[in-house]
Amino acid sequence: MPVSQKIREAIGRSSWIRKMFEEGAKRKAEYGEDNVFDFSLGNPNLEPPPRVHQVLEDLVRDPTPGQHAYMSNAGLVKTRRAVADYLNTYNRDRFSSEEIVMTVGAGGGLNVVLKTILNPGEEVIIPKPYFVEYNFYLDNHQGTPRLVKTRPDFSLDFDAIEEAVTEKTRAVLINSPNNPTGKVYAEEELKELAGLLSHYSGKFGQPIYLISDEPYRKIVYDGIKVPTVFDAYNESFMVTSFSKDLSLPGERIGYAAAHPGISDKKMILAGMVLCNRVLGYVNAPALMQRAITRLLEDSVDISLYQQKRDRLCEGLASFGYEFKKPEGAFYLFPRTPLEDDVAFVAALQDENILTVPGSGFGGPGHFRIAYCVSDRVIEGALPGFEKVMKRY
Amino acid sequence: MPVSQKIREAIGRSSWIRKMFEEGAKRKAEYGEDNVFDFSLGNPNLEPPPRVHQVLEDLVRDPTPGQHAYMSNAGLVKTRRAVADYLNTYNRDRFSSEEIVMTVGAGGGLNVVLKTILNPGEEVIIPKPYFVEYNFYLDNHQGTPRLVKTRPDFSLDFDAIEEAVTEKTRAVLINSPNNPTGKVYAEEELKELAGLLSHYSGKFGQPIYLISDEPYRKIVYDGIKVPTVFDAYNESFMVTSFSKDLSLPGERIGYAAAHPGISDKKMILAGMVLCNRVLGYVNAPALMQRAITRLLEDSVDISLYQQKRDRLCEGLASFGYEFKKPEGAFYLFPRTPLEDDVAFVAALQDENILTVPGSGFGGPGHFRIAYCVSDRVIEGALPGFEKVMKRY
Repeated sequence: MPVSQKIREAIGRSSWIRKMFEEGAKRKAEYGEDNVFDFSLGNPNLEPPPRVHQVLEDLVRDPTPGQHAYMSNAGLVKTRRAVADYLNTYNRDRFSSEEIVMTVGAGGGLNVVLKTILNPGEEVIIPKPYFVEYNFYLDNHQGTPRLVKTRPDFSLDFDAIEEAVTEKTRAVLINSPNNPTGKVYAEEELKELAGLLSHYSGKFGQPIYLISDEPYRKIVYDGIKVPTVFDAYNESFMVTSFSKDLSLPGERIGYAAAHPGISDKKMILAGMVLCNRVLGYVNAPALMQRAITRLLEDSVDISLYQQKRDRLCEGLASFGYEFKKPEGAFYLFPRTPLEDDVAFVAALQDENILTVPGSGFGGPGHFRIAYCVSDRVIEGALPGFEKVMKRY
Repeated sequence: MPVSQKIREAIGRSSWIRKMFEEGAKRKAEYGEDNVFDFSLGNPNLEPPPRVHQVLEDLVRDPTPGQHAYMSNAGLVKTRRAVADYLNTYNRDRFSSEEIVMTVGAGGGLNVVLKTILNPGEEVIIPKPYFVEYNFYLDNHQGTPRLVKTRPDFSLDFDAIEEAVTEKTRAVLINSPNNPTGKVYAEEELKELAGLLSHYSGKFGQPIYLISDEPYRKIVYDGIKVPTVFDAYNESFMVTSFSKDLSLPGERIGYAAAHPGISDKKMILAGMVLCNRVLGYVNAPALMQRAITRLLEDSVDISLYQQKRDRLCEGLASFGYEFKKPEGAFYLFPRTPLEDDVAFVAALQDENILTVPGSGFGGPGHFRIAYCVSDRVIEGALPGFEKVMKRY
């Protein structure tokens, strides 16, 4: 066999969703880019804030030597210190640079944390619907996902989580604000989850970690604040990136932070730094580390995403779509009027509207609309959304 | 346990070499940076060529939207096309953009190729001495290294390779110009290796791949050219980066190329693109992809490394050190006059000269000098090298 069994199967599995994207590309070629309404990808349509360009211009003009050189695998000390200071603006515990590892995006950070903690066959509990890429990230380190349901409003279902906990449970992985639902977990939910994990950590004699994937933390609406897992639970990691809030997804810059009070901290941090190296990342891209050092307080104009959310929600509600209004991120996850979400997404596709079936996120009977698109796309798609709904 | 068994062991294993680095840092603090001669790291001392800065300035001023966005996981088409055109300047077979995957450095590229091809328990043959990071890269994908000896001049030992080939052999991984020896494999060697691998591929009914790690390809001396594996063998991959020849190691930009005539090419390429994504790299940093598109013909001034090599070789030879003069890269791998290379490196350390024992590369009885350092470090260290040699 030319490629490994596992990769061959993965190529096969992902091909149906790839076919949908190919269908989209075909439609764009046939009907013109402007007549296809593509809500399929979480690729931010907003450009990075102007300050990003100013900072980059400054940095590439700076003649100080050694700026593109190797560094500690954890990242530049100055950057890590700035990140720690930033975390100290909203967390009760005090971070220092040593608890921060700069990573190749949040994808890199998640792999670093997972490789650090997972022994083969250990399990990670993930509430559904979820970002399915997590399956690959677990499998990279021979971990196994334990998917658990959430409540109808996508809040955590503690009975389902408790039922899934076993001696093999190494962590719970949450994503808030959530892709694909836009849900933000409340402080009370995090506290209850922490209580549950503390209990079973004690029972099994080793910590069950809480890993929080938070690239959408700054993308929230109606003045909501995203509670921090660090205030709820000591055995926690937070992973994030600047892909969404600074619209820099192609630059692969993010970080992983461990709680200042995490057990066996020295070993955990050494493991994270080692894993960042041996996974082949080596370190986060140097220039982008220097850039984000000055951009931690910045973000794109979130009110623009809020306007998109409001226009889309208003339109879809008026056509009879059922959904929970997203509190953050830039995804809407409505119910499909058909049980078969793949068929419904295909019907939308016939109107040149590209979305993703909820089944692709462990949430059948729904579909995901990524509304990080231009207003023109939203306005253009509304008649099609109405037409398809009327049919069912 | 807070970290996985495997990572805990790896932290333990690597701690002796880390202690040496810590010792170095201590010495720098005690004796002053200028009085410690650090040859321990392959961190290029030359700054990137001025054109790198010009190109980066141009790029960050370019207002075209979408430049920091997600792209195909394989990388920007324009960049991949430029890389293919560059490969076509010295390879017989014709590359197109589709055979190129832009990666997070060569470390990222190697992991992408290894994950694509390796099933658990399969073996990769690696000639010693070698870059020990390969062990981690194999282990990431549950592969096993089969280390084989080379001849006294570090050329390939085909008997040793043939003895190591089994049904489990999935690839041979070579590094030319070599870290730590500076060896460049000759065209005849690559042809003989290709013949051997073709024979056993046929015998076992599946390709045994040749993976060539070539970040030092442009760093060669005395007018030597590095032969290309692609002209020798169809079942081959080449992985490289711009870390050494453009002195951009911190920026994590490189690529992996598959032979245009590789078997089952479509599946292999789909696997590489998938692995780049699911390993959490997602794509190579966007800005650096755009930069190297214009910098493929550039490099630092290699004659400066050649001068360093010559001065060091001349000095060490006059003190009685035995070594093979490096043909490329910026490492010298002399014999230690003691059998115990760790003890010899410790003796050099007492003279504030920091090097790495050959044991750290699977080459005991040697030590590695990374001469990508300022001339001052080389001149300052020569008396110490002489003094320690005289003692034995």
